[in-house]
Amino acid sequence: MRALLFLLPFALLAQGPPPRLVSPEVHPDRRVTLRFRAPNAAKVTLNREGGRPADLVKDDKGVWSITTEALAPDMYGYSFNADGVSLIDPGNPSMKPNLLSTTSMFHVPSPDASLLWETRDVPRGTVHHHFFRSAICQDQRDFFVYTPPGYDPKAKTKYPVLYLLHGFSDDASGWTSVGQAHVILDNLIAQGKAKPMLVVMTLGYGTLEVLQNRTMGKKSFDLFGESLLKEVIPTVEKTYRASTNRAQRALAGLSMGGAETLVVGLNHLETFSQLGAFSSGGIPGDFAQTFPNLTAKANDQLKLLWIACGKDDRLIDANNKFVAFLKERNVKHEYVVTEGAHTWLVWRRSLSTLAPQLFR
Amino acid sequence: MRALLFLLPFALLAQGPPPRLVSPEVHPDRRVTLRFRAPNAAKVTLNREGGRPADLVKDDKGVWSITTEALAPDMYGYSFNADGVSLIDPGNPSMKPNLLSTTSMFHVPSPDASLLWETRDVPRGTVHHHFFRSAICQDQRDFFVYTPPGYDPKAKTKYPVLYLLHGFSDDASGWTSVGQAHVILDNLIAQGKAKPMLVVMTLGYGTLEVLQNRTMGKKSFDLFGESLLKEVIPTVEKTYRASTNRAQRALAGLSMGGAETLVVGLNHLETFSQLGAFSSGGIPGDFAQTFPNLTAKANDQLKLLWIACGKDDRLIDANNKFVAFLKERNVKHEYVVTEGAHTWLVWRRSLSTLAPQLFR
Repeated sequence: MRALLFLLPFALLAQGPPPRLVSPEVHPDRRVTLRFRAPNAAKVTLNREGGRPADLVKDDKGVWSITTEALAPDMYGYSFNADGVSLIDPGNPSMKPNLLSTTSMFHVPSPDASLLWETRDVPRGTVHHHFFRSAICQDQRDFFVYTPPGYDPKAKTKYPVLYLLHGFSDDASGWTSVGQAHVILDNLIAQGKAKPMLVVMTLGYGTLEVLQNRTMGKKSFDLFGESLLKEVIPTVEKTYRASTNRAQRALAGLSMGGAETLVVGLNHLETFSQLGAFSSGGIPGDFAQTFPNLTAKANDQLKLLWIACGKDDRLIDANNKFVAFLKERNVKHEYVVTEGAHTWLVWRRSLSTLAPQLFR
Repeated sequence: MRALLFLLPFALLAQGPPPRLVSPEVHPDRRVTLRFRAPNAAKVTLNREGGRPADLVKDDKGVWSITTEALAPDMYGYSFNADGVSLIDPGNPSMKPNLLSTTSMFHVPSPDASLLWETRDVPRGTVHHHFFRSAICQDQRDFFVYTPPGYDPKAKTKYPVLYLLHGFSDDASGWTSVGQAHVILDNLIAQGKAKPMLVVMTLGYGTLEVLQNRTMGKKSFDLFGESLLKEVIPTVEKTYRASTNRAQRALAGLSMGGAETLVVGLNHLETFSQLGAFSSGGIPGDFAQTFPNLTAKANDQLKLLWIACGKDDRLIDANNKFVAFLKERNVKHEYVVTEGAHTWLVWRRSLSTLAPQLFR
């Protein structure tokens, strides 16, 4: 056995490198073939957003493959699991950044780019990446700002601002690199369905310790909220043509970012008038403790409280409970239960549904 | 054997998921331990920038590992090769974007952030991501613009502009996400060693076909040059406080981008006054054909022609030949042969050496 191993490099050298695999291969009929070379693996599974885990099958050259059924046009995250280890697709340059588990992405295009998160030949906005030292969080961090097509830093117009928060394990780039928020806004604005607005996407952790601990906690929420209110918003309003009127400020987010939207937003209605919480999870403490002053008085200040969750999301019960709490407190809200689970397939749609309702 | 395979998922379920591996683990003495779980692989190798391939060793739990010698403080790209397949480190969220082969990165910090590409507590610039449809290249593409700390779109000051090009297989984000160009400029400007400047990093392919074909070719160079001159530069000069004086325009790049710098720059001295070519490779045609009008007259227009290559770079002979051609044509230049091979370890240093010389 050792002798055989010793010979392996020479054998490979003689053969040349193995042929490059095509993966993902998106077929015209919207089936997708994924391939992974792992000659010695005992089991390789595909994990795909919106699908159940499925086994790949190995050929006599050590290449594992699977072909999905015809998929609805969309962008899908996926990874392989080889003998218990989650791996991206090495043949695919499209990677989903994530601080805990990196995955790959493929795109099943719609016939006429009819999904709002597909790039169309419309005027495009710009995404600005800002870096700063947070005195509150005591670290170097970043945020992104989308400016709409035609944004002119010298113009008189002041733009409304949506603060848009990512989920647990994402970084500040999540809403653009995976969520396609900039493309969704470009397309909605081109159709006249959303008002031209700034979208600010900031790092959503008060402390990065929460990633090591795999749990969120009140300290991180508090520091995050303080940094958002005292560092990020003032910087944005100093740097951009951003309205400083609360009627022109919205806060929304997904999962951890949905919980942050509710905790920070409902406790700071002097700052925000419109809130959107997608698939929220991780509100620290109990509701009465976390929202001590929430009463029907909030209805005077809240122009929109929009709550959405997929019906197959593991957090649907938690969202039902929060909505029951809002009813108990007589706080007006809109609650939308959509198709789908805890995935970006849902959140791109949530943003696409929320954005047209803002700043009306 | 099949029966055993069938039992595997239940066994995993009973045990819970395998413990999370720490990888990379950067030790205080600057050795780095890398770990990869692959219980059934026959051979796992580490490929690391600046190092020779080295074998990992498997323990009785199926975890392969290797500990490097103490490494010089720097940021290193690396990948595992498991039975002939190149894979990123699944435990590491730091990924190097690349259109042909994705790899991971680790950072061996210097004691006092003395490397110019390490983040320091200095005023930070901003990186702007622009999207546009290229009428010349007939596709949707992008470029990035670094603006220095304190950049004010309403101010009277006009800034000099460095156009900075990536290499073959990189995308437009390469110089920031891997090259840390924005951090290098922040630090040089904070030290008073570089003039505040804009840095424009644009997609370096005239056509993306070159990626499928694995070869560059004249068509891609020509379309790229035309798009740079007729689309990117005019957009930058319309959008930013950018000087339109050739004395305030520089062009530089690495590898394919170095060749593009020479081909586009030396043939467009009416546009650029300063050129930097790092580890250049892939100039199409022969030199006499590609630079038909290059004579000593260029010396009147060229404020700087800076050529650099690592002594262990596979392209050192090609660079020596190009420098001989410049001598033959009596074109003044500076040629610097540095330590290192064809890696980002060299190019971050090239930019750090070039930037202080620009716009003086």
